[in-house]
Amino acid sequence: MNKRILVAGASGYTGALAAQIVWDHPDLELAAATSRSDAGKRLDRLYPRYRVPIGLSVLDLDRLDGIDAAIVAYPHGAAAPTVAALRERGILVVDLSADFRLRDPDTYARWYGEHGAPELFGTGVYGLTELYRDQLREATLVATPGCYPTASVLALAPLAEQGLLSEVFIAAMQGTSGYGRSSDDTVHFSAMTENAFPYKTEGHRHRPEIEQELAALGSPAPVTFVPHLLPLDQGELSTCFATLGEPTSKEAIRSLYAKRYGDEPFVHVLDGPPNLRAVRDTNECHVYVTVEERGRVVAFAAIDNIWKGASSQGVQNLNLMLGLDETAGLL
Amino acid sequence: MNKRILVAGASGYTGALAAQIVWDHPDLELAAATSRSDAGKRLDRLYPRYRVPIGLSVLDLDRLDGIDAAIVAYPHGAAAPTVAALRERGILVVDLSADFRLRDPDTYARWYGEHGAPELFGTGVYGLTELYRDQLREATLVATPGCYPTASVLALAPLAEQGLLSEVFIAAMQGTSGYGRSSDDTVHFSAMTENAFPYKTEGHRHRPEIEQELAALGSPAPVTFVPHLLPLDQGELSTCFATLGEPTSKEAIRSLYAKRYGDEPFVHVLDGPPNLRAVRDTNECHVYVTVEERGRVVAFAAIDNIWKGASSQGVQNLNLMLGLDETAGLL
Amino acid sequence: MNKRILVAGASGYTGALAAQIVWDHPDLELAAATSRSDAGKRLDRLYPRYRVPIGLSVLDLDRLDGIDAAIVAYPHGAAAPTVAALRERGILVVDLSADFRLRDPDTYARWYGEHGAPELFGTGVYGLTELYRDQLREATLVATPGCYPTASVLALAPLAEQGLLSEVFIAAMQGTSGYGRSSDDTVHFSAMTENAFPYKTEGHRHRPEIEQELAALGSPAPVTFVPHLLPLDQGELSTCFATLGEPTSKEAIRSLYAKRYGDEPFVHVLDGPPNLRAVRDTNECHVYVTVEERGRVVAFAAIDNIWKGASSQGVQNLNLMLGLDETAGLL
Amino acid sequence: MNKRILVAGASGYTGALAAQIVWDHPDLELAAATSRSDAGKRLDRLYPRYRVPIGLSVLDLDRLDGIDAAIVAYPHGAAAPTVAALRERGILVVDLSADFRLRDPDTYARWYGEHGAPELFGTGVYGLTELYRDQLREATLVATPGCYPTASVLALAPLAEQGLLSEVFIAAMQGTSGYGRSSDDTVHFSAMTENAFPYKTEGHRHRPEIEQELAALGSPAPVTFVPHLLPLDQGELSTCFATLGEPTSKEAIRSLYAKRYGDEPFVHVLDGPPNLRAVRDTNECHVYVTVEERGRVVAFAAIDNIWKGASSQGVQNLNLMLGLDETAGLL
Repeated sequence: MNKRILVAGASGYTGALAAQIVWDHPDLELAAATSRSDAGKRLDRLYPRYRVPIGLSVLDLDRLDGIDAAIVAYPHGAAAPTVAALRERGILVVDLSADFRLRDPDTYARWYGEHGAPELFGTGVYGLTELYRDQLREATLVATPGCYPTASVLALAPLAEQGLLSEVFIAAMQGTSGYGRSSDDTVHFSAMTENAFPYKTEGHRHRPEIEQELAALGSPAPVTFVPHLLPLDQGELSTCFATLGEPTSKEAIRSLYAKRYGDEPFVHVLDGPPNLRAVRDTNECHVYVTVEERGRVVAFAAIDNIWKGASSQGVQNLNLMLGLDETAGLL
Repeated sequence: MNKRILVAGASGYTGALAAQIVWDHPDLELAAATSRSDAGKRLDRLYPRYRVPIGLSVLDLDRLDGIDAAIVAYPHGAAAPTVAALRERGILVVDLSADFRLRDPDTYARWYGEHGAPELFGTGVYGLTELYRDQLREATLVATPGCYPTASVLALAPLAEQGLLSEVFIAAMQGTSGYGRSSDDTVHFSAMTENAFPYKTEGHRHRPEIEQELAALGSPAPVTFVPHLLPLDQGELSTCFATLGEPTSKEAIRSLYAKRYGDEPFVHVLDGPPNLRAVRDTNECHVYVTVEERGRVVAFAAIDNIWKGASSQGVQNLNLMLGLDETAGLL
Repeated sequence: MNKRILVAGASGYTGALAAQIVWDHPDLELAAATSRSDAGKRLDRLYPRYRVPIGLSVLDLDRLDGIDAAIVAYPHGAAAPTVAALRERGILVVDLSADFRLRDPDTYARWYGEHGAPELFGTGVYGLTELYRDQLREATLVATPGCYPTASVLALAPLAEQGLLSEVFIAAMQGTSGYGRSSDDTVHFSAMTENAFPYKTEGHRHRPEIEQELAALGSPAPVTFVPHLLPLDQGELSTCFATLGEPTSKEAIRSLYAKRYGDEPFVHVLDGPPNLRAVRDTNECHVYVTVEERGRVVAFAAIDNIWKGASSQGVQNLNLMLGLDETAGLL
Repeated sequence: MNKRILVAGASGYTGALAAQIVWDHPDLELAAATSRSDAGKRLDRLYPRYRVPIGLSVLDLDRLDGIDAAIVAYPHGAAAPTVAALRERGILVVDLSADFRLRDPDTYARWYGEHGAPELFGTGVYGLTELYRDQLREATLVATPGCYPTASVLALAPLAEQGLLSEVFIAAMQGTSGYGRSSDDTVHFSAMTENAFPYKTEGHRHRPEIEQELAALGSPAPVTFVPHLLPLDQGELSTCFATLGEPTSKEAIRSLYAKRYGDEPFVHVLDGPPNLRAVRDTNECHVYVTVEERGRVVAFAAIDNIWKGASSQGVQNLNLMLGLDETAGLL
């Protein structure tokens, strides 16, 4: 029997996409999609490009019988209390917010402020599937990574795991869906077309998340991270410059990548630079690595920021949590 | 000595552009640029693509000494009271709103509701410069046309003046700047990119304005008008289909257009279809007319909707009102 | 056993998409994809956004054993001889070119020149599935309509079938994929971004095709047709103005549309204006009709020009020819 | 009396823009605009967005009497022989190609091949105006920098001049006008919209040019350089990561930048991240610098790649060569 899934916060970009993926999923049933701001509207009216002909309701924590798992697509800070309430009712949770990604409370406090469910802090499994697959099978609470960490960490993981990374500089670029639906002047078409710019240049919250994961893999390297907004909808590219602790040949590095990702269903190591159109509307991550003549590495990863960078990776994790095939509903 | 100009409502798209054009104008001085919502901000911070290094202030009707003329870029309905107050102080006014465009009060009431300064209703000169040049030289209050009427009426005027128009069907297309700065989901880059659609298909307020002007020229033809939103910033194209009361050859019609617009500094009759890039950031209107084999006419006009369709046409009119060269600051 | 399909001309936009749809189709097997210009390249390298990991070969008419049907995606004029050769070998053919769409040889000669297989002229079934479903089940040669006729005729068919159409004026808009892959300056990103324009204003080859089909349905109305190019990739919108032979109420017309398309799997009658994003990458056609106060009708249809306007409609027809479910591989 | 200027190669993007800037220039006269491929066409027909109503002719080196200076906008390699011929006739030359930018013949040979006028190799002044202003006043041959070096070197020059740069990593992004007019599939609108990607990841010819200039300023730092193509027309952003030889405070660095560029008419040091729309169609370079917590510097520069990155910087240099005000025709 299909598992019954709740998508909470389904009127935002990642929540709506999560609802669509669950709707199309052969082994899941979309039990409910909730939204405070757009309750009463049909999801396929709110997003004509999706095909989910159900109405949005207001989340009622007292009427969740028969829900097996929930995908929570709330803003950072707002997610934690709802996640806690869902967990209390025994519902498996895939959280798309940042609330459970960081493992150091001081770092969380510095970048996000007070936590909304401190008793659960640090208990989530980090949902970068390719790194935490085994833990995810047992997880009850998963913190799906941010889009920038997904691409950046996948770009660098084969080096990080070998303890090779010395210094890391990342120029990351993303489309306007990463800015969220709650639009302001910045993402007005008239402001964004023919434009591009770096932002949060004094520090972005995804930087400590990237450092946490590279360190966990074996390379506690300092990361400088600069995000840019591009005039496109969906897509995220991480261009990662790295110096290595010891000289390593291009061949050795490429072989490392080929071996590391050879069996991955969604991470593909290319033999040339990736592009965003090739991963759009997919759960794929396209990786390419090269070494320039003085030995510095440049590693690239391209994903769709609201798919592999959020909603479809959430479902990838949900598949594991529910004992389904990891790729179900995602190919 | 340069005339001192107030731009009221300078934080919106057309007001900000009007401030820029006045700022660059050799014979005008930008005395003040006002905005309620963005008071205190510098205009060139709000719009980095413009170059007006002055701060926005709140309009104070008691401190307008030395202002010769004002360009009012308020929303429809909100403009009329301010226009009236400015006129009471003897200030010449170019209004960019719809408040003084229509000449029939019932039509105004139907499409816009109650008027904010009924004592002035009908006293403005319609600011389609090429049609009302003589009256504009004497005008104290000018109602700058909407962007759609500017292009559509210029596309059809040579036929309308000859009483030739029988039936008119207009498909008009505009970029997102026509939607205004106060963005909502519709013009979020993620919603608008790779999209296009008709809107206000049950009736758009510019239709009665177009009919009013075609009738005034001599052709009281019924107009069907459908606007479309395109994924671009600035630009408006009117594709006008017309049947004629009497058969007229393509040569005769083209000669009519050539003669009518031959001396116009800003209206250019092309020998092929116009395109939006060619008129962007200019006060130009590019017109093309053809006649298909059964005698139906297709007339096209392309303008920049916030230039000739609003702000620069406002300055074109202001030039006339102030006794300046009509093209001053606009070439 | 799956039917074995050849896609001839798979390096162009519609051919490559046809190959992708066949590749994903549960009941079809992509036996070969051919291209003269790109032979030897893998299709998924040529189009990274597609997922067809096979190499392009040169078409060899002597080695077609085991091919059940072919989709021919050649340029107009070039298709006919290959279509004839395939038919001689008993292979069912879905032609995506214009070579077999018109039924009057003089009209063909006027718009396209000499025909490449005159013995087959007029023998194809016109592949607008919703109009010719029964004939398509028996067809051996199908002429898939142009993208503009698909949208325009579907927008007007319910009126045409009742003999109601009197005069028709169509403003149609399309993205750059309709221009084809063989790029020139016109569709360079730098030329097309922030641009839009009408083209072929003196007559477009899709106009006689639209007139042929409206007449066949019962309304031999004269059509004026103007296409426009928009700054987007995939999408086609037809805005059709029509006068009727007899006054008909909005309710009656809407009921006509609801009834006509109520059972269609791919044509959806909306209750508001369509948009292009909602049909992108689908075989759907979204239709909306309204009647303005003087009784003129405006009917809209939105499709994806390379899906329903070409390749997926080709597969829709192929499904019928092969006795498969019409929707197989297309939902 | 106005100086008479030849623009050779005026049918490409940078040549056409150079012709436009010369045409509008108060102290220059566009004596001729030449093009082999488009001879006979009017420039304003080829580029409707420009306003140069003259015909393109074929360059005739025997009929150059009365020409004071030339802007040569030929492809790399093709420029040198024409530059040599023009210099022989005593004509001042601003070359927009790469032929005279590098000062080391081996480096030139490695990246570009054989040189077309070896006798002139190394004799040009590098036309990054802000760095070589004095030499440019005396120059007879100027090599205008590439767009990437213009932005990247201006972003880093204040640090380079102090010998502070240790390691440099540059992620640079450019619009499709940088790809040139001779389009191929890559810059077809359908391929480029909603896309972005790194390219020439194994080494780009602008890297040695950047290293040459940083070394000349005092910092022979190794540079890793990765260019990216963005879905926009005009604009270039360089995001430069640098480690310093000695720790330097953010305040000290910002003061360095403020002082270095304080008097520059076209380089503006911002107090926040730059964006591409703000510099479009201008000769400006917007610079921003920050220092992250571990002392690494991130310096940004935004320019219009065909203006300050090519044609308008060419005219800026031409102004100096001709003894005109450096800003003439460029504000």
